[in-house]
Amino acid sequence: MTTKLTPQSEDFSKWYNEIVYRADLAAQSPVRGCIIFKPYGYEIWENIRAFLDRRFKETGHQNAYFPLFIPESYLKREAEHVEGFSPELAVVTVAGGQVLEEPLVVRPTSETVIGEAFSQWIQSYRDLPLLINQWANVVRWELRTRPFLRTAEFLWQEGHTAHATHDDAEAETLQMLDIYAELAIDGAALPVIKGQKSNIERFAGALRTYTIEAMMRDTKALQSGTSHNLGQNFAKAFDIKYLSRNNELEYCWTTSWGLSTRMIGAIIMAHGDDMGLRLPPRLAPIQVVAIPVYRDEGEHSQVMPVIDRLTRELRAAGVRVHVDNREETPGFKFNDWEMRGVPVRLEVGPKDVANGKAVLARRDMGKEGKQFVAQEGVVAAVRDLLDAVHANLLAQATAFRDANIHTVTSYDQMKQVIETGGWARGYWAGSDEDERRVKEETGATLRCLPLESAQERGTCFYTGQQGGRIALFGKAY
Amino acid sequence: MTTKLTPQSEDFSKWYNEIVYRADLAAQSPVRGCIIFKPYGYEIWENIRAFLDRRFKETGHQNAYFPLFIPESYLKREAEHVEGFSPELAVVTVAGGQVLEEPLVVRPTSETVIGEAFSQWIQSYRDLPLLINQWANVVRWELRTRPFLRTAEFLWQEGHTAHATHDDAEAETLQMLDIYAELAIDGAALPVIKGQKSNIERFAGALRTYTIEAMMRDTKALQSGTSHNLGQNFAKAFDIKYLSRNNELEYCWTTSWGLSTRMIGAIIMAHGDDMGLRLPPRLAPIQVVAIPVYRDEGEHSQVMPVIDRLTRELRAAGVRVHVDNREETPGFKFNDWEMRGVPVRLEVGPKDVANGKAVLARRDMGKEGKQFVAQEGVVAAVRDLLDAVHANLLAQATAFRDANIHTVTSYDQMKQVIETGGWARGYWAGSDEDERRVKEETGATLRCLPLESAQERGTCFYTGQQGGRIALFGKAY
Repeated sequence: MTTKLTPQSEDFSKWYNEIVYRADLAAQSPVRGCIIFKPYGYEIWENIRAFLDRRFKETGHQNAYFPLFIPESYLKREAEHVEGFSPELAVVTVAGGQVLEEPLVVRPTSETVIGEAFSQWIQSYRDLPLLINQWANVVRWELRTRPFLRTAEFLWQEGHTAHATHDDAEAETLQMLDIYAELAIDGAALPVIKGQKSNIERFAGALRTYTIEAMMRDTKALQSGTSHNLGQNFAKAFDIKYLSRNNELEYCWTTSWGLSTRMIGAIIMAHGDDMGLRLPPRLAPIQVVAIPVYRDEGEHSQVMPVIDRLTRELRAAGVRVHVDNREETPGFKFNDWEMRGVPVRLEVGPKDVANGKAVLARRDMGKEGKQFVAQEGVVAAVRDLLDAVHANLLAQATAFRDANIHTVTSYDQMKQVIETGGWARGYWAGSDEDERRVKEETGATLRCLPLESAQERGTCFYTGQQGGRIALFGKAY
Repeated sequence: MTTKLTPQSEDFSKWYNEIVYRADLAAQSPVRGCIIFKPYGYEIWENIRAFLDRRFKETGHQNAYFPLFIPESYLKREAEHVEGFSPELAVVTVAGGQVLEEPLVVRPTSETVIGEAFSQWIQSYRDLPLLINQWANVVRWELRTRPFLRTAEFLWQEGHTAHATHDDAEAETLQMLDIYAELAIDGAALPVIKGQKSNIERFAGALRTYTIEAMMRDTKALQSGTSHNLGQNFAKAFDIKYLSRNNELEYCWTTSWGLSTRMIGAIIMAHGDDMGLRLPPRLAPIQVVAIPVYRDEGEHSQVMPVIDRLTRELRAAGVRVHVDNREETPGFKFNDWEMRGVPVRLEVGPKDVANGKAVLARRDMGKEGKQFVAQEGVVAAVRDLLDAVHANLLAQATAFRDANIHTVTSYDQMKQVIETGGWARGYWAGSDEDERRVKEETGATLRCLPLESAQERGTCFYTGQQGGRIALFGKAY
């Protein structure tokens, strides 16, 4: 009874909205701009969280939890910061039946309240580095919202650290960027590009912002995680000082870094196709769906013991398996799980029972991806297949991205690239003003100055100046 | 330089406040009634969360995430519910620079918004039971707050389920109560009593509320988790209906159940002593603290390789170990970790290195708890010791509780028990009015009607009526 998805080529944005609800990732909520994260969508987040949390702890960070509410005056202490966030704030003015003397802002990010806490917790160089992470909800009241990509409330982690020197803070900032890239590449099969943000794109209050940028299937860019060297800006605004080894009071150098449920949107849009989702195996809530194939009760009772045994073995090996026992036809189920993007399908029919075989099919390939395997080899075969699906999704996304990044040496070329779709890559030495004009004229933003090309210099495609750095421009979510 | 804690016997409440901050479990925040969960406190919550999340999933529940904000009108749909929560609400009236047409309440609990979602998600009996859990922050603007026990914002999980029949809902309600009791007893070493709440103590909008009640070291009661059979109250308020097998539209039966960061307060107050915290091993952030004992660099370099090796072995066995490498004396460290309640201390000095030994000391015992073990037996010995500490904390808390529950057959006896400290246990057949009067006159509330005595009947100690049920009365947090 299900109608087909709108093809991506026809209307990518419509495809996205359809798949989010059809695949049961999210539901609409009664609150403007907020979604309900349904179990199938939320579990992707749980897997992202587990991946990152392990890496954060391995690199010496500890989790803590700070208040949801921030006194309004705190936001105002760092000048750029308040300017950046003011238009998006949700404000509690009444609590416990009383009008509050000072309104409380629902946190859009926690640099301010954590900065204040750090100023009290840090006394001397022995307290440094202070490496804290928080898993939390945040609220930014944006005008245009889209499920996962931009919602009024979203879930994220925000790391906040304090260091004795600029270089320590810079090393931390880059280390966390690397961990985000690891999650993207090794977890989500997203070939992100690490880079630095320009002045006008950096975080409100930061010295430098680094980003991982991913390309979606419509060639638009999605900023998927950011890491900020905050310099001494917040340390000065919140008086975060330490007594150095030389017994002098110095301001700390702080960082912050965040990755949000937006990453779920990136996964949907970078891998999905006209049949539906294609979930990267390491983050997929269901890695293998097991489907019994039978025509009658007799066949059902032959097939189920094998399904149960294989499922048990797979679970024991740490594979996330779901058995689809619904009273629907196998064909219906195949389509349904294809749409929901489960990487591997396991089928067992009466013939397979007789032959000691099972069928494995992979979501990322058509009919040629189907294979018969001996039942005793299912666990090993599934493991290999999950790795193969991951590798293939990553390879496909990389090939797509590389085919859609075009080198430009003039503004005309750049405009043409942006118009036809894709990212422009070229030397850039323009001013903030130039960058704003390019954005106005083309709709494209400077996504990042890629780190891998940080040493290259050449003639700016826009101003003709020497000493330009390689920059990527593209339209973005 | 540290001063002693206020003894519990002198001022329990002062002892509690001191230990919360001294042990670094929490810090004060700039927002009235909100605390900062510092890593050492937050990690207890992470361990509680991991324990419960595993059990929720084993029993078929899935996690989801619903919006923080609830339209004000939703709260009003269930009459008792709105009355129960109205005085405590925090309200967002301005967002994105605009006054909102309908104010948004920061969730105090999510029955309403989840009820509305369930009404859309549930069509037929095939969609039942629907078993959802959410890990979230909630806000209740209470007048008197205390770290962990009662904070304006706190962290919790809230389960929400829908069922086809009253009995299914009741079975779910009791199953989740059992899981809470498991966490309390097997995880936190808290000998909780499972029971039913009276009419006037039950959740606003519930048919029946069940609770686990724990006794603190000052003999006060702490409600540590509750599970509610909501009957059809919320189903009717939010129109949660399903098409039955007989093709008739029926209202669902729903439940909700929650356990919060309050549990951390219970752990502190049920086990702590005048030296500080005593953390139950299975939830302790640090299960073993390893302390090198040395007088000079030479000894240090002898001792550290052994500490490192034993630590590695313990970690490989899944034990949470922290090595205290600070430049303080062993004596200072012993006291510090005693105060912070680490269950087991591992010491290695130069003599131990020579003898192939190590020292293990347990927090729950004095000098007689200290033993020498062979280094090759450390992992097994630590495991046994962690279990022994758990068992001893549970036994001590059980003995304390039992010694402070007194059977009463008259109101005078009851009043005396409450006055001298402890819980009164007796038959109760009073009305809601009677119960309110008892509360007013004694300061004690009906904590619960214990499930284990649900069949017993006798003469009410207050009214003299027959058919009273066993009830527990006590002062409570």
